[in-house]
Parts: sequence; C-alpha cells; structure tokens
Amino acid sequence: MNTIDGFAELPRRLVLPAALLLVVLGGATAAAQDGKDPKAPKGPLVLKAQGSFYVGGRTVQTDALTGDPTGGLFPPNQGSITVDQMYVQFQIPEGGGHHLPVVMVHGGTLTGKTYETTPDGRMGWGEYFVRQHRPVYVVDQVSRARSGVDATIFNEVKLGIRAPNEQPSVLRISHETGWTWFRLGPSFGTAFSDEQFPVEAFAEFGKQAVPDFNALLPAGNPSFNNLAALANRLGGAILLGHSQSAFFPERAALIDPTNIKGMVTLETGFCPASFAPQEVAVLARIPIIVIFGDHLGDAAGTFAATWTTSLNNCRALVRLISDAGGDATLVHLPGIGIFGNSHMMMQDKNNLQVADVILAWIDRHVEGKRGK
Amino acid sequence: MNTIDGFAELPRRLVLPAALLLVVLGGATAAAQDGKDPKAPKGPLVLKAQGSFYVGGRTVQTDALTGDPTGGLFPPNQGSITVDQMYVQFQIPEGGGHHLPVVMVHGGTLTGKTYETTPDGRMGWGEYFVRQHRPVYVVDQVSRARSGVDATIFNEVKLGIRAPNEQPSVLRISHETGWTWFRLGPSFGTAFSDEQFPVEAFAEFGKQAVPDFNALLPAGNPSFNNLAALANRLGGAILLGHSQSAFFPERAALIDPTNIKGMVTLETGFCPASFAPQEVAVLARIPIIVIFGDHLGDAAGTFAATWTTSLNNCRALVRLISDAGGDATLVHLPGIGIFGNSHMMMQDKNNLQVADVILAWIDRHVEGKRGK
Repeated sequence: MNTIDGFAELPRRLVLPAALLLVVLGGATAAAQDGKDPKAPKGPLVLKAQGSFYVGGRTVQTDALTGDPTGGLFPPNQGSITVDQMYVQFQIPEGGGHHLPVVMVHGGTLTGKTYETTPDGRMGWGEYFVRQHRPVYVVDQVSRARSGVDATIFNEVKLGIRAPNEQPSVLRISHETGWTWFRLGPSFGTAFSDEQFPVEAFAEFGKQAVPDFNALLPAGNPSFNNLAALANRLGGAILLGHSQSAFFPERAALIDPTNIKGMVTLETGFCPASFAPQEVAVLARIPIIVIFGDHLGDAAGTFAATWTTSLNNCRALVRLISDAGGDATLVHLPGIGIFGNSHMMMQDKNNLQVADVILAWIDRHVEGKRGK
Repeated sequence: MNTIDGFAELPRRLVLPAALLLVVLGGATAAAQDGKDPKAPKGPLVLKAQGSFYVGGRTVQTDALTGDPTGGLFPPNQGSITVDQMYVQFQIPEGGGHHLPVVMVHGGTLTGKTYETTPDGRMGWGEYFVRQHRPVYVVDQVSRARSGVDATIFNEVKLGIRAPNEQPSVLRISHETGWTWFRLGPSFGTAFSDEQFPVEAFAEFGKQAVPDFNALLPAGNPSFNNLAALANRLGGAILLGHSQSAFFPERAALIDPTNIKGMVTLETGFCPASFAPQEVAVLARIPIIVIFGDHLGDAAGTFAATWTTSLNNCRALVRLISDAGGDATLVHLPGIGIFGNSHMMMQDKNNLQVADVILAWIDRHVEGKRGK
C-alpha cells in the first residue's frame, strides 16, 4: 500500500521530497499518529459574532403544496414557495478579523454536521478553524438539510399529475458500501491497521446521513451560484468542498471568481482530468489545493479503481492548471508522512493534523500573497 | 381585537390582573414596544463548550438506496441505513452550569434555524438563552433538515415496486397562507398596525422553509422518544416546542417524564382540549407554560377560527391539568401587556421580551422548585 507516489504537485515542481514539501506548504507538521492531537484547545471559545442566513433562492408557483388536492390543513393546494436557497451558519472569532473567511461544504447524503463534533465526540474542523482565528461559514448544500428545494414533483406523482418514473432518484449510501468506499477498511466491519477513522463510532457516523435530494435540482446546481454569491457577500473567501462538493469551489469560480481567494478540493471519487481551456484560465487565477487520503488502492471491489483513477485524474488536472500559470497543489497525505486517512479526513483521529496542512497552505499560498 | 381575555391561568387562580401576573411569573417586563430591545448584548459570546450529536435512530434494510435498480454509482441498490435519528446542536455558556438546559424544537416545514438569527438579522432565542446563562440544545425534528428519515418509498414508487398513491404527502405552506396563518396581517402583503413580525424581511423568512417529510415517519413520531432520551442524557432539561412541535414536550413526557423538568408549549393552531386522565396525571407532575400571541381572531378566512378554537382548547387543557394538581400556566401575551405578536414570536421584533417571559417562568416555576 501507499505505492502511489504522493508528493505534492506544485507549480513547475512536479515531485518534491517530503521534507521540502513541508517547507513549501509553510510548516505543516507530520506529527504523532496516536490520534491525540496536542493542539486540542481546552479554553473557552470566544466569539465576536455568530449566526445564520440564507444565500440565493427563488420564488416559484407550485400546484401541489401537499399530496392532498384540497391542501389539507392549509388550503388551497396552490401557491408560492421559495426554493434553491442555501443555508449558511457562521462563527467569527474574537480578534480574528485579519484572516479570510473559510466556507465549508459537505459531501453527498451528508450535511453541515460533517464539520462539527466528530462521531467519537472530538472537535470538528468548524470550531478548530475558528480557534485558529478564521471566520468560518458552514453551509448545507442546496436541497439538503436546512437548505431549500422544490419537492413538488413528489406530490404531483402522488396525485397522478406526473408519472412515477419522472420522479428523481433519492440517494442513500448503505453502511456496507460506505465502509469500504470511505476506506475505513478492506471489507465491512474490518479496519485497516493504521486506520485513522474512529471506526468504533461508525454507528454514530451512520446517523449523519440523510436522504440526498440533489436529483431534484435544476441543471447547474444552484449551490455553485450561491457559493459565488456568498464569497461576494463576504468580500473575499476561501471555499472548501468535499466529495460530492469537492469541485463546488471551482464550479463557483467558473460563474464568478471575483471574491474566491482560494479553493480547497478534498477527495472526490470522480475527479475530472481536465476542464475546457477557457475554464482552466479562470481556475489558474486562484490558488488551489487538492488533497487525498490513504489506502486509495486498498478498498474492496470496484472502489479501489475509483480512487486510483480519481487521484490520477486530479494529478493531470493540477498539472494542467499549473501549466497555465496557476498555483495548484496536489497533496496525497501519505506522501507527506500522514498515513491512514479515510475519505472522511475531517473526522479522522488526526483531523486537526490534516486541518493544519490546509491552514499552512492558506497562510503561504493564499494569505501570503494578499496585498502584494 | 384583543377582546379575548388573556390573563394567565395559574393553578387555582384562573384570572389575575396583569400587574399581579407579572409578580407571579417572576418579573417579566412589559417593556417598550419599539422593536429595539435594550438588553441586546454587545459583548463577545463566551462558550464553555459547543457541538452536535444525534439521539436515537435505528438501522433498517432498504431495497432501494436509489431509484436505479443497479444502485448507480454505488452498487448494489440494497443495504442497511440509519433512520429516525434526531440532530442536536448545543452551546454551553462559560459559567452557566447552575441552570437547566433548554431544548428548542421548531415547527412544521421549518428547522432549527427558527431559533437562530431572525429574518431581519437580530439575535435569536438560541444565543439569547445562552447569554442568559442557559445551556441550549436546538434540534431538527426527526425527518427534517440534519435529522434522518427513511425515504425508501420514493425510490420504490419510482421503480414501480409501490403505487404512487402509497407515497406520503410532502408538506409546504405557501407564502400567501403563511402570511395570514402566522398572523403577520389581515391579508397577504398587509401587516397589522402593531405587528411585531419583521414583515420587511418576509422574503428571508420564506427561505427558512423546507419540504416537511413528517408523513414519512412511523406511527408515534420518533421525535417524542428522542426528546425524552435527550432529557435523560442531559440529566434534566426543559423542553420547548412550537406550532407543529408545541406538544412534543408533553408527548415526550408521556413516554418518560423522568428528566423533563419543565415544558414550554408555544402556539399550536390545533390544541387538544384534553388528554386521558392517566395522561393528565403525568403532565400534572411537570410545570407547563402555554403561550399565545396576538391577533388570534383577526386573520383572514378560516384561520381566525383555528386560533380562537386552539386558545380555548388550551385554556381548557390548562384548567384540567391545574385541577389535577399541576402547575400549568396559560399566557395570552396581550393579557400581560405585550401586543402584536405573530405565530413566530421567537423572531418578532420583541422576541427577547417574549423570551424574558419564559425565562422568568423558568426561574420561578421550574428552577425555583429545585432542591425543595
């Protein structure tokens, strides 16, 4: 295992020794692998502000507010509703105004919970980034959790207005598939020997999953536009996506790159090997880091091929953006001495160590360039 | 308007002058109605801890993880998933350990967002209660937002395994109906002259609504059991419900009253006039406050009758519980000099004033009795 070369691909420097890489990243540590992070803070959390709001959304007329043609308790069954809005929950640390906000987006069947308390009760990235003096904005993707979606078609099918096969698919990922695809171990119930995911809390992780209604969304996922709008509202932000949303930062930038100051792309199983030349030119204007965990070729069944192919595609993509003059970095964590990370690296036992890789990259590649 | 007598119904004292009532409640103020609350804090928020977790949930086997019989990207289409778990997000103030936790539950088509920043950007009850030294636990009802539900039937209908009319109804409430039913004004777009809801931010309020999948739930809403379990996990808590969830505290208590120390029932449009005698005996063991806002008879169409009937039913219910020896209070806000409140009293311009009514009741009726 870990036979894939994992060294970061930096602009014009395709392979670096791990030690040099750490320098380039700006000081990320390949610290102890014991699952206890010495930096876990113990003091109170002091916030300048917190709250939540919505970005985007549009008003539509629906003919099926319910599956009852009379409208049930609230007649009539027709009226206007808001759909496709994106929920944003934020915390701003006291005294942290000099750092750019970080916007965190979750993956498929998951929600903003991804970045909160881990399944085994440790601090998540949301609070950790706040404690590292970053304003943090955790969103629910449009159509998921506290964000909106137009679910009219379910009632229209119930009422016989539309055919059942017109109804979009709802996505869940089974525990059995999740275990291997998220690379907790080689087969369901068995962990890799150096596994970083807290497998003893897998049942708690399973509770984080909810029905994924993304298939209800109109073409051009509204989250893309809403994320660009959020960056504009904040006057500059770093966008971070994971898995299903790994490339949401880039998709948002292709709509409006104005206030997207950095893009963090965490593990998609389906990385595109390229974008169109005019798109690459846009992406090359914004620093990008792409991160993959461990055991990419070690999962059972077809999933091993998925991860290996995706890493290779992302490697090609990073090279493409670098060749266009961009500041694009690919980090395969084992290549910098960080082993055993699952797909859910923000919840792994060494989650704060992985966070430090991102924070170091922000300091060097995003904020180090500001005002210069 | 405000012709309904609104004096609180306290045990053995069915009608009290407003001034005396304030004494009984423990000092709630009928302060200025200008929408600017002088108590809005300006200092930083200092938290001892924050985080999120799930309560409840069960593992089920599904035959339709997706609407694609092959399982699409993640074959096979069968496997185990977790459903009916309840998401809980909490904040514990630094130095606030001597107060009981308050658990806040939202209403239909809404989410835990209800208790966060108001549509016009003011502080919500969640943070306000924390700033008043209370540990606060805001949940998403089971089947909503970050909480789980079994949505298999949608895929089964798509796949032709089940008939469309077996599919449960999905609930939305239109903006037009919401405006009058939530009592923002007599007709859509027109506000009552003393309206407390920030009607200028109605579009933002509309974004808080998401599809309501409660009809997917098994009989005996799992939120009831999960709320009782949450109270047990906390070793004692006050449960607060609103609208659809107004009686969730009581339903939880009827499953296990052990650690439910107080129940706050905010405005349902469908109050039951009674419970079975053995249920009343259980409810009489826990202090209860039921609160209604203003303009109950002033909404258009059938909704006026809804609210008036519900208030009268709740008045009868409070009397029933009081007669069984309980400490049950009904507050019709105009009766204590607080006018213009909508159904969304936790978001109204005087939301902190209404919160103070609850806090004063907790101090006197719940915590004042502890250890005695």
